[in-house]
Amino acid sequence: MAGVYDYLPLGLLTLNNINRVIREEMNSIGSQEILLSTLQNQELWSATNRWQDDQVDVWFKTELRTGTSVGLGFTHEEPLTNLLRDHVNSYRDLPFSTYQIQTKFRNETRAKSGIMRGREFLMKDMYSFSKNEEEHNVFYENAKRAYLKVFGRLGLGQKTYVTFAAGGSFSKYSHEFQTLTSAGEDTISICDKCHVAVNKEIIADQPNCPVCGGNLSHEEKGVEVGNIFSLGTRFSDILGLNFVDEGGQKKAVVMGCYGIGPSRLMGTIIELNSNESSVVWPREVAPFDVHIIEILGKEGEEIRSAGEGLYDALKRAGVDVLYDDRNISAGEKFADADLIGIPVRVVIGRKYLEKGVIEVNERDNGKEQEVLLKDVDSLVEALQK
Amino acid sequence: MAGVYDYLPLGLLTLNNINRVIREEMNSIGSQEILLSTLQNQELWSATNRWQDDQVDVWFKTELRTGTSVGLGFTHEEPLTNLLRDHVNSYRDLPFSTYQIQTKFRNETRAKSGIMRGREFLMKDMYSFSKNEEEHNVFYENAKRAYLKVFGRLGLGQKTYVTFAAGGSFSKYSHEFQTLTSAGEDTISICDKCHVAVNKEIIADQPNCPVCGGNLSHEEKGVEVGNIFSLGTRFSDILGLNFVDEGGQKKAVVMGCYGIGPSRLMGTIIELNSNESSVVWPREVAPFDVHIIEILGKEGEEIRSAGEGLYDALKRAGVDVLYDDRNISAGEKFADADLIGIPVRVVIGRKYLEKGVIEVNERDNGKEQEVLLKDVDSLVEALQK
Repeated sequence: MAGVYDYLPLGLLTLNNINRVIREEMNSIGSQEILLSTLQNQELWSATNRWQDDQVDVWFKTELRTGTSVGLGFTHEEPLTNLLRDHVNSYRDLPFSTYQIQTKFRNETRAKSGIMRGREFLMKDMYSFSKNEEEHNVFYENAKRAYLKVFGRLGLGQKTYVTFAAGGSFSKYSHEFQTLTSAGEDTISICDKCHVAVNKEIIADQPNCPVCGGNLSHEEKGVEVGNIFSLGTRFSDILGLNFVDEGGQKKAVVMGCYGIGPSRLMGTIIELNSNESSVVWPREVAPFDVHIIEILGKEGEEIRSAGEGLYDALKRAGVDVLYDDRNISAGEKFADADLIGIPVRVVIGRKYLEKGVIEVNERDNGKEQEVLLKDVDSLVEALQK
Repeated sequence: MAGVYDYLPLGLLTLNNINRVIREEMNSIGSQEILLSTLQNQELWSATNRWQDDQVDVWFKTELRTGTSVGLGFTHEEPLTNLLRDHVNSYRDLPFSTYQIQTKFRNETRAKSGIMRGREFLMKDMYSFSKNEEEHNVFYENAKRAYLKVFGRLGLGQKTYVTFAAGGSFSKYSHEFQTLTSAGEDTISICDKCHVAVNKEIIADQPNCPVCGGNLSHEEKGVEVGNIFSLGTRFSDILGLNFVDEGGQKKAVVMGCYGIGPSRLMGTIIELNSNESSVVWPREVAPFDVHIIEILGKEGEEIRSAGEGLYDALKRAGVDVLYDDRNISAGEKFADADLIGIPVRVVIGRKYLEKGVIEVNERDNGKEQEVLLKDVDSLVEALQK
């Protein structure tokens, strides 16, 4: 069905690598991972006016056998704010941040753009809880830097712009992370002086770059790979998430939320690193580090044996290897390797018999070399740089 | 809401450790991990007569904005069989096995027993695809052994029985893995000669042990922590999952399914390793390897500094450490440590000042010792055994 995807083994390995990068960067700013439920109860969301379909138009609703309505979570501010009432009492409990990588459900009228906009999709959603605006702003800036690290590690750094977008009642702006691609649904205006953009939706209110005052006349299509948002006390006021400050005063917790879509990121990486017949994954997210293609000629046994030795040596060195030992033509193997997208391709075949070498093709930087099979240690070292 | 749970940081670490053990054992028998969607389409399940609520009474149903009904997956035989029609053509493509660790939804009339029986819960479901019964039986026995390894690594080996239960039209029996606990919902009859049981539901048809003929008079309560089931060609016949055999004949694929509930396992491990005020997790699944409790007296700074040195040394050695540096009483720290359940507890306090030692308590085997802080390498070595 449109907007709903299954992940097969190679795709899941890639998705899990994206998740690993996100996890590492969120952990590095002190956020703690949790896992909230999909099923959501009506009362909680009614309290914040986000239950009725005329208030939120992406709910999937279902019901328990008792007849009680429940919804499938499209975000998790309400349950998390509610949960934290049991854990936050004093200023000593703050600041605090937590995140999850969890399946979200959004009943989109039209699901399009493949895994870029799904009805069921993976989301990393992080939430922060602070004593005041100042403490909130410190975390917000840390999160912004962590996000830029994620996009950098995924090979999207140059093409990804911190983009000023509409805020809410508690902040003038929110920030999107927009990656330039013609497949994007958003239009952004890029500053001609600094690496920042403004979402076209607010360009009327913000005709110049909010960072450096530069000109914003250059428009591009972008895909929103992440967004961060100051929530102020909107949820904590309504749901009663309060703390007692240093002076004994009860105050509402200041919140922020921070989203990244791992499955949308996967689609964006493909948009930037593929053509009709070929993909090259960035090394951080490739499903394997090295793809070995064996081409058996008449002396098949000798090649097979050397290839398996190479496979074992690489595995022992901690390199993840996909070994194509199928009994099909070399052309089919190369075509599949192009589509699977592993950045380093190694061919073992005729040249091994002639000269004892394997052919190493680093598809991401175009480097091609012949390496003596007995010198494979130096190959491993070179790959790990 | 009943039967729906959130996982906080320590619980999620434990759940992920259980998942890691399961993953390692499923990978070791050659099964490949995938991830299927929650949203399920009506047509596919109508074909196998499992869509209508009078046929399957645990569906959660919802609908797309177009009005199309969709269900939340409670198992995945149908979509996977359907998916594999694109990937299985020849006998060369078989045998094949794949699994996922994915959230399932079951609209239970009464959700009880906490995380032991949820409306939304994690499930590892594996499926096998074979050319014939003989090839199927080989995989089935491999899966049975892999399951026993999982339960062994989780500390449930002695208390877990391969239990004969009702089969289906394609096999006389299915096999459950029942762990003895008074919290269990099932009753099993245990053989007095071998480590095997029979579910009470089939005892009338199977009065003696099917393995050794022994007596089955001893009844116990058990919780079903896993089950494996031969499906024959039930799904492949209806959905058209066929292959061409060595002789050029088209045949239906022979299937099996294999379930383990990680969240139910977590509940079972707690049942077997806890009392009112204390839990001790098995080392494979504990959220951390070591729990350091610092007890600052008057010479707080010296203890804090030594404690942090210990923390760093353990982390460098690859040991996961939880360090309790909160400004609360020693009694509160011990009470929390008892509930958190990390198997190795280290106290650094007065005795460090007096004798340079830390107090190491291996809560799972009762071993208590004083270790010179400067000899902490030998502690690490001892813990890793």
